[in-house]
Amino acid sequence: MLRVAVVGASGYTGVELIRLLVGHPEIEISSVTSRQHEGLLISQVFPSLAGFCDLICEPVDIAAIAAKSDLVFTALPHKSAMEVIPGFLEAGCKVVDLSADYRLKDQAVYEQWYQEHSSPELLAEAVYGLPELFRSELAGARLVANPGCYPTSVALGLAPLLKNDLIDPATLIIDSKSGTSGAGRSAKQGSLYCEVNEGFKAYGVAAHRHTPEIEQTLSTLAGCDVAVNFTPHLLPINRGILSTMYATLRKDQTSEDLINLYRQTYADEHFVRVTPGGELPNVAYVRGTNFCDVGLVSDQRTGRVVVVSAIDNLVKGAAGQAIQNMNLICGFTEQLGLGIVPLFP
Amino acid sequence: MLRVAVVGASGYTGVELIRLLVGHPEIEISSVTSRQHEGLLISQVFPSLAGFCDLICEPVDIAAIAAKSDLVFTALPHKSAMEVIPGFLEAGCKVVDLSADYRLKDQAVYEQWYQEHSSPELLAEAVYGLPELFRSELAGARLVANPGCYPTSVALGLAPLLKNDLIDPATLIIDSKSGTSGAGRSAKQGSLYCEVNEGFKAYGVAAHRHTPEIEQTLSTLAGCDVAVNFTPHLLPINRGILSTMYATLRKDQTSEDLINLYRQTYADEHFVRVTPGGELPNVAYVRGTNFCDVGLVSDQRTGRVVVVSAIDNLVKGAAGQAIQNMNLICGFTEQLGLGIVPLFP
Amino acid sequence: MLRVAVVGASGYTGVELIRLLVGHPEIEISSVTSRQHEGLLISQVFPSLAGFCDLICEPVDIAAIAAKSDLVFTALPHKSAMEVIPGFLEAGCKVVDLSADYRLKDQAVYEQWYQEHSSPELLAEAVYGLPELFRSELAGARLVANPGCYPTSVALGLAPLLKNDLIDPATLIIDSKSGTSGAGRSAKQGSLYCEVNEGFKAYGVAAHRHTPEIEQTLSTLAGCDVAVNFTPHLLPINRGILSTMYATLRKDQTSEDLINLYRQTYADEHFVRVTPGGELPNVAYVRGTNFCDVGLVSDQRTGRVVVVSAIDNLVKGAAGQAIQNMNLICGFTEQLGLGIVPLFP
Amino acid sequence: MLRVAVVGASGYTGVELIRLLVGHPEIEISSVTSRQHEGLLISQVFPSLAGFCDLICEPVDIAAIAAKSDLVFTALPHKSAMEVIPGFLEAGCKVVDLSADYRLKDQAVYEQWYQEHSSPELLAEAVYGLPELFRSELAGARLVANPGCYPTSVALGLAPLLKNDLIDPATLIIDSKSGTSGAGRSAKQGSLYCEVNEGFKAYGVAAHRHTPEIEQTLSTLAGCDVAVNFTPHLLPINRGILSTMYATLRKDQTSEDLINLYRQTYADEHFVRVTPGGELPNVAYVRGTNFCDVGLVSDQRTGRVVVVSAIDNLVKGAAGQAIQNMNLICGFTEQLGLGIVPLFP
Repeated sequence: MLRVAVVGASGYTGVELIRLLVGHPEIEISSVTSRQHEGLLISQVFPSLAGFCDLICEPVDIAAIAAKSDLVFTALPHKSAMEVIPGFLEAGCKVVDLSADYRLKDQAVYEQWYQEHSSPELLAEAVYGLPELFRSELAGARLVANPGCYPTSVALGLAPLLKNDLIDPATLIIDSKSGTSGAGRSAKQGSLYCEVNEGFKAYGVAAHRHTPEIEQTLSTLAGCDVAVNFTPHLLPINRGILSTMYATLRKDQTSEDLINLYRQTYADEHFVRVTPGGELPNVAYVRGTNFCDVGLVSDQRTGRVVVVSAIDNLVKGAAGQAIQNMNLICGFTEQLGLGIVPLFP
Repeated sequence: MLRVAVVGASGYTGVELIRLLVGHPEIEISSVTSRQHEGLLISQVFPSLAGFCDLICEPVDIAAIAAKSDLVFTALPHKSAMEVIPGFLEAGCKVVDLSADYRLKDQAVYEQWYQEHSSPELLAEAVYGLPELFRSELAGARLVANPGCYPTSVALGLAPLLKNDLIDPATLIIDSKSGTSGAGRSAKQGSLYCEVNEGFKAYGVAAHRHTPEIEQTLSTLAGCDVAVNFTPHLLPINRGILSTMYATLRKDQTSEDLINLYRQTYADEHFVRVTPGGELPNVAYVRGTNFCDVGLVSDQRTGRVVVVSAIDNLVKGAAGQAIQNMNLICGFTEQLGLGIVPLFP
Repeated sequence: MLRVAVVGASGYTGVELIRLLVGHPEIEISSVTSRQHEGLLISQVFPSLAGFCDLICEPVDIAAIAAKSDLVFTALPHKSAMEVIPGFLEAGCKVVDLSADYRLKDQAVYEQWYQEHSSPELLAEAVYGLPELFRSELAGARLVANPGCYPTSVALGLAPLLKNDLIDPATLIIDSKSGTSGAGRSAKQGSLYCEVNEGFKAYGVAAHRHTPEIEQTLSTLAGCDVAVNFTPHLLPINRGILSTMYATLRKDQTSEDLINLYRQTYADEHFVRVTPGGELPNVAYVRGTNFCDVGLVSDQRTGRVVVVSAIDNLVKGAAGQAIQNMNLICGFTEQLGLGIVPLFP
Repeated sequence: MLRVAVVGASGYTGVELIRLLVGHPEIEISSVTSRQHEGLLISQVFPSLAGFCDLICEPVDIAAIAAKSDLVFTALPHKSAMEVIPGFLEAGCKVVDLSADYRLKDQAVYEQWYQEHSSPELLAEAVYGLPELFRSELAGARLVANPGCYPTSVALGLAPLLKNDLIDPATLIIDSKSGTSGAGRSAKQGSLYCEVNEGFKAYGVAAHRHTPEIEQTLSTLAGCDVAVNFTPHLLPINRGILSTMYATLRKDQTSEDLINLYRQTYADEHFVRVTPGGELPNVAYVRGTNFCDVGLVSDQRTGRVVVVSAIDNLVKGAAGQAIQNMNLICGFTEQLGLGIVPLFP
């Protein structure tokens, strides 16, 4: 049994990691940490977990956790993550980091969008853990930078088009909508029920920190520098991201042609489901699972393709993909512990 | 592998049965039926199931289904269920019926609240499948009447009090609130999003058909005739029933005393979780699972106990309990296929 | 024009007062205060108000506000309210207080449920502002204690029964459900969207601070001491309280008899609508308005009556009733500024 | 008093017309029709209206309605509307039509997207009732084609850019999201609470019937043929449309420059509110009102402008704009009856 710790267990990503790890046959949870709830059972913090995980929330003592853990999931805010990750690596743990701290390869870009980086020497080593696109880099990795939720939904939606040079990347427009769990569990007025419910708005327009991460991945896929308009919106639902993406096709293509290309591209990818022609994804159909559903329409009136992708931001956009990455770097079957059927309705 | 059919697969109870059966290691789904969607893949009807169950919806041909099935779940409306169940039994199938048709032991009571019963001779044989209360009757049963959603939440919430004669049954008041999936998937104006969202109402006051079922079970537990006020309400959520129940205690009891009694009563019951003193259930903490969470407060100012129970109406209130019953009548481990961690948030 | 100030304008009750006052033809808003947002326009705090009220949020300077105001609405938390109200009264303002500080006539009861009272000498003077029940006391009042949201829904629902001695008050059980705006606008984890949405729970069972206020009013109506079970629940909606109330009838009464009594009792009350027989209130039908809809069923099987009342907790449960009280103590037509049609859907 | 009829009163647009007309000081409602609910009080169909409008639902008898009405609002589905409108006009009534039947000037385009037009001779006469853009055409009009909800949100969001030739219309991409009341009140499975709640999807991609209407208006504003990508999505809220619109600027412009232009353009328009720099619209802030809130960001990294507009689809997107049009063609003050403050939360 692999011994894994969840550092930062009291957020929505933390509870989701525990939910999924409890059902994973090859691991045992060695430690959960929470500064805020130190000393409480994690099942007091999240009564949903009663009977499944009754560990006590510990403080983040690197030596103590490393002594009983083979792998650590860091579900901390950016900056807090890089304060502890070098220590865990030194102590011999593998790390799957769910923060943004090791996602951007270019230190300068990171520092422009976030803050000074305290361990830039690890940026080259960190593997960007989007298995469907970069699986070969994961085997044996010691440090995985788990992708952001929006970037995951975007990259899987656009990869077939960019890798096959079917669209003009300069025309890319990405309009994304996320459920409210993406805003985290800290008590902020903007995340209150009455502020979100029956409302809908864009936020962070032309300024969201996932933009450079999206552009880094799309540039890699396209083989050239890509700059995009990325507009996130806040949806009054708990879970789910839907990204609607627009680009001009280099040449005329029917929807059917493109759907076939997507089917081929993702034929061996368990976690990507291409919707049939005429159908498009709905976040409700991936709820609680590691799936990314992708569909598209070629609009021959305008020469553009419209791609729609849907994920559960807490699963494929965070905890599920982190476990998929753990499986890959530890030699387990990639889908282990992730065979969940979507909860509908 | 046990071969099981889901008759009436296109409702919310149907898709929930399939969701759970897909993860059950000892069964295979032999057939799914839907009059409305005959000829379509069930994964076209419910895209959430894509990749998990791609059977074609069949009509209800008893002989054809029985030929390939050992057990049949009937997820049909009342009346429709009793039209096919005798046929399945005759053909040698076991049946777990999720309708109301075999729940009431007294034919006259059934006919007063529903309509004429077409196979009253089966009422005596049918076992009321609430395992935590009537497990011993299930072994070897051929026909299980799966309890209603409200009655399940009520019976598990009140059983310890009634069995130990701690309350006056004449004072029982049951105020229940159900998520909208309980209203089914048929297109009715009253179930439209805009009619339910941001609304809340009582319905069926003093007239809901679950009343005689509740009273039948409570009378059995109490050992005397019990009549209750039962008021259901419609909650703007997808899943979940919360029942708040009031009764006068026969003698003074602290909350702690009563919680201890509940803990003892349900000590060996995997699917009943008694919340700690000071905490009460929330439907959000049982979402997607077969749990019934129960908590209570003894109000010494008024001499009453207030019991609160929470279930997922589609799982412990329908499909999950049906599978629990299948496990029991087929000799599987009771929890098989039901080890799901609640989805929160 | 009456000059009115809204002290504590940045909560949900504050913005609701402003929404309603803006449409009132006989008043002008002289001042809005907010410690948290001092110096901002109230329309920056609440963009919904843009173009309607562009006052700057002031600190609570009693002298400055009193100098430009004839009447002050205090929409502050309890304790904060009584720290400023004596000052406003001394300075010659009338006060309609939306906190709990002057609702309980008995200082000892207040201090048992809240904290020490700093101006108990005003308790006798303060008028409990539930016009439909105590209108005669309001004319000329200087200090109005605006009722709590739950107590309003309960008192209007039960008054005809208690005043006519038709029920046994000892059997009263009150099961209430409130929208989340009732929890206020301060950033608390329990009020986050993801904590409330798709959830439902009871809270404050046998311990909610509205209990003594409810009992005070019901005792007055009944002419004897009344103790009740009052259980509030948190609804995943923005606005609305539905109270479901149970009591044993002293003698057999049909639903029709009782509905007629309610119609007579409330015949001249513009803000109470009695639903027709067979229909029951829904919070959706009073949204945004000062109405209290009331309906009932007499359950002849159990001898109990079930009364259901619905209000908008921010209007009849707070700001609307406060304006109704202002109208009465200032000699305006009672309905002035409150002629709003419910927003449905 | 102007006598007005609401033909098709039992849908969401119908009840919204009545809600607003009840508060209009210069009209009286002469008739409401509903085939489905003929003979019922409209306040039985919509209990929210109890006490405000207790007319009986009539069948659509043109002569009878025309005899008692000066103006008719037709809130019928397309096709049904054009079956009765010529009759009302002939009988001397003015008509404000909320269907799509007279919005498209080009009969061929109408017939391509809808069906054969039965009164094409009226297309030239019908005035497209978007007052902020085409007010001068409305005075004295006999037949107003009330704009679609999506087209209203789009046209008001883009007009200042197109009229001033600041963007390349060929680059326009429109990503819109609508609350569920836009889908109407008829009982369809896709509009059920459990199908919509906690879900989010695009629909009608590259095929929605509002596309030609949007293109007609944008072409008029731009002075050239415009073809756009328009993608509607279904939001799990009752009311509101948010449109996020993207276009390439012809030359570099700061956000501030563009916001100033918008402020100037809409300086005299009561119903358009331009949000301050750094703020963007939220559908929650226009709830229940005739406002269109508009904001924008110029993204200098990509050379595009991102415009966001928000309306209440039932008010500015339907009933409110219809009353605004009525005011204009009947010589009332444009804002009469529409001075509603947004309901927040």
